[in-house]
Amino acid sequence: RDPLVIAGHGFGSRLIMGTGGAPSLHILEEALTASGTEMTTVAMRRVSTQTEGSVWDVLRRNGIRPLPNTAGCFTATEALRTARLAREALGTEWVKLEVVADERTLLPDPVELLDAAEHLVDDGFIVLPYTNDDPVLARRLEQVGCAAVMPLGSPIGSGLGIRNPHNIELIVEQAGVPVILDAGIGTASEAALAMELGCDAVLLASAVTRAHEPVLMASAMRDAVTAGRGARLAGRIPVRRYAEASSPAPE
Amino acid sequence: RDPLVIAGHGFGSRLIMGTGGAPSLHILEEALTASGTEMTTVAMRRVSTQTEGSVWDVLRRNGIRPLPNTAGCFTATEALRTARLAREALGTEWVKLEVVADERTLLPDPVELLDAAEHLVDDGFIVLPYTNDDPVLARRLEQVGCAAVMPLGSPIGSGLGIRNPHNIELIVEQAGVPVILDAGIGTASEAALAMELGCDAVLLASAVTRAHEPVLMASAMRDAVTAGRGARLAGRIPVRRYAEASSPAPE
Amino acid sequence: RDPLVIAGHGFGSRLIMGTGGAPSLHILEEALTASGTEMTTVAMRRVSTQTEGSVWDVLRRNGIRPLPNTAGCFTATEALRTARLAREALGTEWVKLEVVADERTLLPDPVELLDAAEHLVDDGFIVLPYTNDDPVLARRLEQVGCAAVMPLGSPIGSGLGIRNPHNIELIVEQAGVPVILDAGIGTASEAALAMELGCDAVLLASAVTRAHEPVLMASAMRDAVTAGRGARLAGRIPVRRYAEASSPAPE
Amino acid sequence: RDPLVIAGHGFGSRLIMGTGGAPSLHILEEALTASGTEMTTVAMRRVSTQTEGSVWDVLRRNGIRPLPNTAGCFTATEALRTARLAREALGTEWVKLEVVADERTLLPDPVELLDAAEHLVDDGFIVLPYTNDDPVLARRLEQVGCAAVMPLGSPIGSGLGIRNPHNIELIVEQAGVPVILDAGIGTASEAALAMELGCDAVLLASAVTRAHEPVLMASAMRDAVTAGRGARLAGRIPVRRYAEASSPAPE
Repeated sequence: RDPLVIAGHGFGSRLIMGTGGAPSLHILEEALTASGTEMTTVAMRRVSTQTEGSVWDVLRRNGIRPLPNTAGCFTATEALRTARLAREALGTEWVKLEVVADERTLLPDPVELLDAAEHLVDDGFIVLPYTNDDPVLARRLEQVGCAAVMPLGSPIGSGLGIRNPHNIELIVEQAGVPVILDAGIGTASEAALAMELGCDAVLLASAVTRAHEPVLMASAMRDAVTAGRGARLAGRIPVRRYAEASSPAPE
Repeated sequence: RDPLVIAGHGFGSRLIMGTGGAPSLHILEEALTASGTEMTTVAMRRVSTQTEGSVWDVLRRNGIRPLPNTAGCFTATEALRTARLAREALGTEWVKLEVVADERTLLPDPVELLDAAEHLVDDGFIVLPYTNDDPVLARRLEQVGCAAVMPLGSPIGSGLGIRNPHNIELIVEQAGVPVILDAGIGTASEAALAMELGCDAVLLASAVTRAHEPVLMASAMRDAVTAGRGARLAGRIPVRRYAEASSPAPE
Repeated sequence: RDPLVIAGHGFGSRLIMGTGGAPSLHILEEALTASGTEMTTVAMRRVSTQTEGSVWDVLRRNGIRPLPNTAGCFTATEALRTARLAREALGTEWVKLEVVADERTLLPDPVELLDAAEHLVDDGFIVLPYTNDDPVLARRLEQVGCAAVMPLGSPIGSGLGIRNPHNIELIVEQAGVPVILDAGIGTASEAALAMELGCDAVLLASAVTRAHEPVLMASAMRDAVTAGRGARLAGRIPVRRYAEASSPAPE
Repeated sequence: RDPLVIAGHGFGSRLIMGTGGAPSLHILEEALTASGTEMTTVAMRRVSTQTEGSVWDVLRRNGIRPLPNTAGCFTATEALRTARLAREALGTEWVKLEVVADERTLLPDPVELLDAAEHLVDDGFIVLPYTNDDPVLARRLEQVGCAAVMPLGSPIGSGLGIRNPHNIELIVEQAGVPVILDAGIGTASEAALAMELGCDAVLLASAVTRAHEPVLMASAMRDAVTAGRGARLAGRIPVRRYAEASSPAPE
């Protein structure tokens, strides 16, 4: 009744998962199930569709849409090649576009990213770009035809949460496509906050796969995203400097 | 399987609600139901057990335990009198003890509060004191025999969230009784954060009753508390200054 | 021209220093001089006025007023005894009153503190109490006759800065005596912030004495307090969600 | 003894001022003097060097180096033209490069900015680009030959301070040219914080020119920058979760 719609496709869950970092395939499957996710990213440069078919099996038997990503690409050229290989291998036009600038921060390279996004859109892809939290770059990515924008909260795997909520709000205010908070989430309250800021969905991996108990954390993230979405729609109380007593109870 | 236990009594829900501020009794009932709460505070100085019996009816027919509170009391003497009236009228030894210092901040008066707590415990009450976030006062309240400690996140009704998470953590570390975050919560992510900091439960009223859509917010708060509790138990990833790529997916 | 006035005594500097933690008496003297301070606390339970007279020498030859403190006292009784010994030994009615609850947090015990303050005031002391950031306790301390209130920013020596700026603002708004931010300051910007929140002065020790270069840090703290005071008086610009271009330069 | 060096030129002050927003030329002059600044930006598109010569007079008679900026430019082409006009009119190769994306946020356009920077460097300019807080873009700007990088703390004129200190730290860690915090500073403690994070200088205008008392705020900013620089060099104490008592004073 409140579906997330990306490129005309509706999703019942607003939590998108990644697969990296899980201690075992078995735990990954349990965690994905507990999370309620309907779409999960898989790194094309890290997983062969032939020899490591089992990740695909997990997604297939749980009815989870695979979202190939271009993790590990440092240039537009590499990203284009990876995306095309993914399309051929998996038969999907959807791609999570990652073009990072260096290994240490894994921050997106704005110039290469925008260039790659433009080429992939022209080539018929449904492009979901991982970007920094710059509202200008987010707008540019939408203008070249991306199906969503996926700003980071903080560096990939850092667990630092949402470093600049103000920028996320600016991105949400101007966006005509879904905004998906991608990267940096470390715990449930941060996923809820992303939704309260107006994001349409949250994408995370390490926060679940590397938690001490991944399956329990997956369940917590599912609830947190639902909670944050509900709170956004419910309209929170304003902030006051001073106290306000509860009025008498209704009769 | 993960009950909240206060004074030997187990609760399946870790969300305690208040009744003040609801636009109507009908919406209050729907919100309480959506929240999944099993215990709800009612201000004894504001609600007559005779003439405004309907609040009690709502709690009774939904199987929600009433927790009378001493809201509106400024001295230990007033609080003692109110607590005793509540016990007589409702037949419960449980009391949420509020002794505030002034109307503007509604902050607890530490001296009067501790004095009242001691007397009520001696008088056989199960005392749940609303306190500030001072770890020393929290410890003193436990030492005089309170069944829980209920530190504020920020002033009542302010929606400022948890102003000093460090103090809440200090209180949790030392507590031998349940710690219930009481007051200040404005939105779902803050309720989740309270649980992640180690609180055993969350008590809130205005955040739900005064939200634009109270019933939806009640549901969001239920999920947020569940999410925060799960994240606490699941063991979150550590915070890193730099990025960490997801490792190759498992085979 | 903008003196700090405590109990009718004017100070040109709004930075009060402590002596603990300095690597040597020589560096302490240089740091005190660089800080520009006119009043410095000395722990009476740690320094004998006879055998360790040299600290007093440093203060005397630099014209710095000594402010004996009751550090290390855990009860009102101990604090009263220590204060009286200090008065006898040093010939001053001024005392920084510390009554802490435990070694780990060194947080003030609100009940013992208030009790000690009341007795010392009755006994003719000029009492400057180290307190937590509870606005109610601060008001009570003023009501029993303290000459200033000295709320913490965070635990002594923690360097956590000001954990709850909102509480400091509430204390400032209501205070009729000087508010001195005491404890928790780790770096210069936090000292400036204390003044911007409306504090009348800042008291710190470890941030200077334990810095890698104490003398340089003392100078930085002097400038920070001046800067924060100036910014408070100058009236800062309001916060805006969006940008505002500079208008054309005046002709 | 601790000069700021940009493109081989040494400055005694680490505070760079802007001229926009001052209530009068007289107050501007007093504020610039109080700030101790040695370099001041002037918007070339807003000030004619002929008719509004008086701003230039102020700078000239106070020995303040003018830094023409390209405020109001939305494309690389516009910025190049403006920079060349400034060079011709003022006889300086130095330029503060601003290429913004829209009026509402005044955020830099990363693509146009990088393009303009590259062209201006090739054309012999000393380029100081106003950029967002993206470490990748900052590195790119340095790589194309900029003489400094000037990341924002938050949008121009917003007074929101430094929204993402983590990004500023990442920029500082990697930079081989001076990092100048530009935009967003609202009060003195924020200027001090910028320096503590490792910035080499601070650039601000509205925080001074639009303050209630610009001259006093200018003085506060001068002290804040000095304080923050000193604290950075002095090496602050580490942050601790718990308290640490001051050790006995040295004998």
